[in-house]
Amino acid sequence: MKKTIIVFSGDLDRVMAAFIIANGAAAMGDDVSMFFTFWGLNVLRKPEKVKAKKSFLQAMFGAMMPRGAGRLGLSKMNFGGMGASMMKLVMKQQNVTPLPELIQTAREQGIKMIACTMSMDVMGIREEELIDGLEFAGVATYLAEADEANVNLFI
Amino acid sequence: MKKTIIVFSGDLDRVMAAFIIANGAAAMGDDVSMFFTFWGLNVLRKPEKVKAKKSFLQAMFGAMMPRGAGRLGLSKMNFGGMGASMMKLVMKQQNVTPLPELIQTAREQGIKMIACTMSMDVMGIREEELIDGLEFAGVATYLAEADEANVNLFI
Amino acid sequence: MKKTIIVFSGDLDRVMAAFIIANGAAAMGDDVSMFFTFWGLNVLRKPEKVKAKKSFLQAMFGAMMPRGAGRLGLSKMNFGGMGASMMKLVMKQQNVTPLPELIQTAREQGIKMIACTMSMDVMGIREEELIDGLEFAGVATYLAEADEANVNLFI
Repeated sequence: MKKTIIVFSGDLDRVMAAFIIANGAAAMGDDVSMFFTFWGLNVLRKPEKVKAKKSFLQAMFGAMMPRGAGRLGLSKMNFGGMGASMMKLVMKQQNVTPLPELIQTAREQGIKMIACTMSMDVMGIREEELIDGLEFAGVATYLAEADEANVNLFI
Repeated sequence: MKKTIIVFSGDLDRVMAAFIIANGAAAMGDDVSMFFTFWGLNVLRKPEKVKAKKSFLQAMFGAMMPRGAGRLGLSKMNFGGMGASMMKLVMKQQNVTPLPELIQTAREQGIKMIACTMSMDVMGIREEELIDGLEFAGVATYLAEADEANVNLFI
Repeated sequence: MKKTIIVFSGDLDRVMAAFIIANGAAAMGDDVSMFFTFWGLNVLRKPEKVKAKKSFLQAMFGAMMPRGAGRLGLSKMNFGGMGASMMKLVMKQQNVTPLPELIQTAREQGIKMIACTMSMDVMGIREEELIDGLEFAGVATYLAEADEANVNLFI
């Protein structure tokens, strides 16, 4: 059965939970669609700076938000990134797959990754700033997919 | 098919996501019920101060929480409200419907908006402090609605 | 019908919402499974310090996170625990069941409480540090349960 996950959060811990569930479902044969919206779009940003046309405020937002899965912070106890670094270190010690590899696995498993176009406008994030292989859509697409799914999470 | 959304958060970004999904679903012909609980109750507060009988602690909570959809902060990068103002400005530039209008649309589309009575007691929020046209109920009502729905989100 | 709730958050307010929904559903005859992951594991910690073998970083994480349902903070307006104390006081005034009793009721109603083993590794939390009566499992178990449920929430 299909599963959908809205990735609203851009926090490392929440995003990891989203991908662990998504990859688990795909491994069990489910069709999975992930919708990245608001802060969740940061997960999909390319790590390098990309030139893109933006308004002043959009450029400010863009500069203040993390670029890509490697730079996300924790939702709690982040301490300016130190918490995230600590957690990544513990995960390495425990052989937990890091987020960039979880995303890679999601792609290899054919999980549909959809960037919310309205959020992209609000956050001032352009297609060329995001990693390849994404789809771009809005709430109607989400709802159509959710109607076909038996598990729908908002993370 | 019916959709239910629990609006637990009172953050502008999360609440907007809730209403965009709700309005999208209603526009596609779905029956939608939104349950406002804990911080989510702040979305429903009237913007003006309303006299209401409260205990000292309830009055303190009430004074510290935002009154209504126009005063919510962001879940991230709020910087004492500056982040929320910036985002509202960007949304205006991008012709994204602001939250108060999203709420108005929700009402016009007949979306059921239910305030959680137990949370109202905890937060010390009285019926007269909330906007008109709401229903008041508890968890049993939520569960009955969720049982009839095919998409149930907690935001 | 079965319900599943992922308790990702360790915030008092969110965790209370999770248990109120779970207990309500169980009271109405539903089968309920709660999955505790990441910060949500703190809900299940014993209040007393338990000796357990940990790496240095795991011990640090463990020392910084709250031990058990009695020590959780609020997701907003916590002010170093003062907000949580205030809210507990208001809840007492309003005869709202406190979290430790909600957990007790959940157990008496036969709600399945499952600790996520992968998160336990990351957070460095050992079985002996958690309260009795739990099950231990991973994402595959969650997905199997969610497939049988008609309401699946991520809190």
